[in-house]
Amino acid sequence: MKPVNVGICGLGTVGSGTFKVLRDNADIIEARAQSAVNLVHIGSRRDNPGCDPGGIRVSRDIFEVARDPEVDILIELIGGTTDAKHLVEAALRSGKHVVTANKALIAEYGNELIALAAQHNVTVRFEAAVAGGIPIIKALREGLAGNRIQWLVGIINGTGNFILTEMSEKGKQFSVALAEAQALGYAEADPTFDVEGIDAAHKLVIMASIAFGMPLQFSQVYTEGISRITPQDIDYARELGYQIKHLGVAKQTDGGVELRVHPTLIPQQRLLANVCGVMNAVLVEGSAVGPTLYYGAGAGAEATASAVVADIVDLARDLAVDQIPQVLPLGVGADAIKELPVIAIENVRNPWYLRMEAEDRPGVMSQVASVFSDNEISIEALIQKAPAQDETRVPVIVLTNATQECNLQKALRSLEALDGVTGEIAGIRVETLDG
Amino acid sequence: MKPVNVGICGLGTVGSGTFKVLRDNADIIEARAQSAVNLVHIGSRRDNPGCDPGGIRVSRDIFEVARDPEVDILIELIGGTTDAKHLVEAALRSGKHVVTANKALIAEYGNELIALAAQHNVTVRFEAAVAGGIPIIKALREGLAGNRIQWLVGIINGTGNFILTEMSEKGKQFSVALAEAQALGYAEADPTFDVEGIDAAHKLVIMASIAFGMPLQFSQVYTEGISRITPQDIDYARELGYQIKHLGVAKQTDGGVELRVHPTLIPQQRLLANVCGVMNAVLVEGSAVGPTLYYGAGAGAEATASAVVADIVDLARDLAVDQIPQVLPLGVGADAIKELPVIAIENVRNPWYLRMEAEDRPGVMSQVASVFSDNEISIEALIQKAPAQDETRVPVIVLTNATQECNLQKALRSLEALDGVTGEIAGIRVETLDG
Repeated sequence: MKPVNVGICGLGTVGSGTFKVLRDNADIIEARAQSAVNLVHIGSRRDNPGCDPGGIRVSRDIFEVARDPEVDILIELIGGTTDAKHLVEAALRSGKHVVTANKALIAEYGNELIALAAQHNVTVRFEAAVAGGIPIIKALREGLAGNRIQWLVGIINGTGNFILTEMSEKGKQFSVALAEAQALGYAEADPTFDVEGIDAAHKLVIMASIAFGMPLQFSQVYTEGISRITPQDIDYARELGYQIKHLGVAKQTDGGVELRVHPTLIPQQRLLANVCGVMNAVLVEGSAVGPTLYYGAGAGAEATASAVVADIVDLARDLAVDQIPQVLPLGVGADAIKELPVIAIENVRNPWYLRMEAEDRPGVMSQVASVFSDNEISIEALIQKAPAQDETRVPVIVLTNATQECNLQKALRSLEALDGVTGEIAGIRVETLDG
Repeated sequence: MKPVNVGICGLGTVGSGTFKVLRDNADIIEARAQSAVNLVHIGSRRDNPGCDPGGIRVSRDIFEVARDPEVDILIELIGGTTDAKHLVEAALRSGKHVVTANKALIAEYGNELIALAAQHNVTVRFEAAVAGGIPIIKALREGLAGNRIQWLVGIINGTGNFILTEMSEKGKQFSVALAEAQALGYAEADPTFDVEGIDAAHKLVIMASIAFGMPLQFSQVYTEGISRITPQDIDYARELGYQIKHLGVAKQTDGGVELRVHPTLIPQQRLLANVCGVMNAVLVEGSAVGPTLYYGAGAGAEATASAVVADIVDLARDLAVDQIPQVLPLGVGADAIKELPVIAIENVRNPWYLRMEAEDRPGVMSQVASVFSDNEISIEALIQKAPAQDETRVPVIVLTNATQECNLQKALRSLEALDGVTGEIAGIRVETLDG
C-alpha cells in the first residue's frame, strides 16, 4: 500500500485539532486506513504555537497546498466562503480530493463544488460540517442507505443549546446566558450566526440533501433564532410537559419538503429534550429502521477533527490501492438528485404554544377562545395564570392542535386586535416527534 | 455499472424484512449503490406467505445459494451456529461476500470466518448483528476511525430492556414482566439468551473487537442476567438518583480490557438511563470526539433489514465497478489485531449498590458499617428503610465507592456472617459513565 499524503489549509481551532489527532493517533489511523496517512504540507497565514510542524512543509500562501503535486487530499479548514471556495476549486481542478469542515461553503456552494469534483474524478467529503464529531453524514448516506428518510430533527447548534439550557436550568434571561456563552468562548463576539439559526440552517440543508436526495438549497430554509425566548416561556412549557429546544427540522410531506430552523416545544420525555449544554443530537425517522438518534459534541477542536480524520481514512483506504472512492458526496449521483419543492412556511402545519397578556376580567377568555374557534383551530389547553400582585393583566397560555401557519397568523392578528389582549403575542411551534 | 446479485438464505423475521426492504426501496437502493441490487436466489426450507418470490429462484437446500455462480453476495439469515457456519464457509470459499445478522456466529466463530474471507479475497459484514438497525458497527469502524476508543457501554438487548422498563414503570415483578414480553413476542419461550445476557455478550464482544482492535473472545465475557432484579431494587435505586439497566460494558484500562454484561445502576439524568422499552443505545467514549451515543430499534424485521441492506449497498458500490471493498470486517487487518488481556471480573473496580435485610435493633448498623471499613471500602450512602408492619427486620441499602470486586465479595461474606443480617445480599454494580 502506498502512503496517502494530506495537506491542511488553516491552523485555527479545527486545523490544530486535526494536526494533533493525525499526529497522536497515527498508529491507529494507519491500521484503519491500511496505509500511512502523512501530513506533508500546511497552508496557514500564521503559525499556531500549539502545532510544531517539525519537518512538514509550511506555506503562507494556502494555494501552494492546492498546487502541491505531492498532496492527495486537501483539508480545507480556513472557514468563510470566498477564499475557501477558490481554494477548494483549485484543489479539485488539480485532481485532489477535498475534506472540509465548512458548513457554509457546502450549504451555499455545494452543488457546484460537487459537480466540479465529479468532472475531475475526485470527491468532496464534509462529515465535520454537520454536528461536529457525530458521524451523522455517514449514518444518513451509508448506515441508513436502505431507508426512505421521512424526517429528521436536530439540535445542531451547540451555542444555542447551551444558552437555552442555561435559561432552562437557572432561569437566566437570554442576554445573560448569551454573555456567559461568549465568556466561555462558545459564542462569537457577533453571535448572529449561532443565535439567529444561520449556522443550524447550513447544517440542516446538508442533512436534508443527503436524506432526501435533493440539491443543497440554503436560501429556501425558514430560519428563526432564539433571542425572543424568555425564561417564562421555558417555565410554562415545562408545566405543560415540554422543553424548548432550537431545532432544525426537515420533513418529506406529500406537498414537498419542509426545511425550517426555529425554537420548538418538544415533549419532555423524549431523548432530544434531554440533550443539554453544547451537545448536539439528530433524530432521524427511516422507513425501515424507524427512529434512530445520534448524539455527541457538535463543536470543539478535537471532536470536529475526529470527523475530518474519519473522512480522510475513508478516502485513504481506496487511494492507497489506487481505487476510486465510490461513496458520493450526497450519497447519490447527480442523475438521482431530484428538485423537490420546498414548502413555504405559511403552509406548514404545526401545533403551537402561544403566550399573551390579557385583562383579568370576565369575558376576555371567552373572546380569546372564540378567535380560535372562528379560525377553526382546536385548542389542546388554555391556561390563565394567576396575576402578579397589583397587576390587572394575566398571562394566558394556549396550546393549539396542528394548524396551518397562515391560519395561525390570522388568529394572532385577531387576538392582538382584541381590547382585552395587550402587547405582542409570543408563539412557538410544537413538534411531537412521533410521526 | 453492472448489477449486483444477492442471495438470501433464511426467510424468517429478518429474511422476510430484508426481502421487503430490497423490493420496496429498490429505487433508492439502486441510487445509493449506484447499481441495481437484484435478489436472484432465495434459500429457505419453507415458504414464507409474506414473501412472494415471483420469478426469483428458490432452493430448499440453502447450500444451493452458496454454489450459485450468479450470486455475488450471500445474505445469511438462518441463525444458529452450525448450519450457518457451514453455509458462510461455503459461500466464502466460492468467492462470495457474506452479509449476516448472526451475532452468535460472529462472536463465536468470527476470527476464523474473517480469516477465511481474507484468504478468498472477499469480506464478511455484520452491521445487523449488533443493535439491530443502529449503524453502530459503521460508527465504530469508520465514523470514529480517528479515535482511540476508551470505553463503550450499551443497552443491547431489547427484551431485557423491555422487562426492566415494565418493572420500573409499573412496579411489576421480573416473572410478570417476562411473561408479558413473551406474550408480545419480544421474548422466546426459552428466554435464557436474552435474560441471562448471552445475546448481549455476543454483541458486546463484536463491538469490543472493532473498538479496541482485538480478536473476538466470546468465552472471556463475564455475563450476569436480570432475573434476580426486584422492583424494590429499582425503587431504591431511583431514590438514590439511579436507573437500573442491563448493560454491556467494554473498557480499556492499564491492566487490560474489561468485558462484562450485567445489571447496572446508572445516573438518572444520563440519556442512557432514559432509553426505554425494546430500544437499544450504545454510548462510546473516543479520545478525540469524547462521548457519542447511538440509539434506535435493536430488533424487528425491517429495523434489522435496514442494517443488512446498508451492508449490501456498501459492498455493491465497489462490486458494481469491479473494485474490492476496502473496509475490513473488524476495521483493521489481521496484522493490526492485538491479543489484549481480558481482566478477570474479580479484579474489576466498580462502585456497588447493596441491599440486605437486617434486624432492627441497636448495634446492627454499626456492625454493618464496620465490615466496610475493615475491608477498606468507603461508603457513599447507608440507608435503613422503615420496617414493614409487624416486621422486626428492615431493608438496608448501601452505596459504596469504587472497590475491587474480590474485596467487595469478601465484605459480602462477612456481612452474611453477621448475626443481625439475614438471607442473601443483593448486589448490583454502578457505572457513573463519566470517565
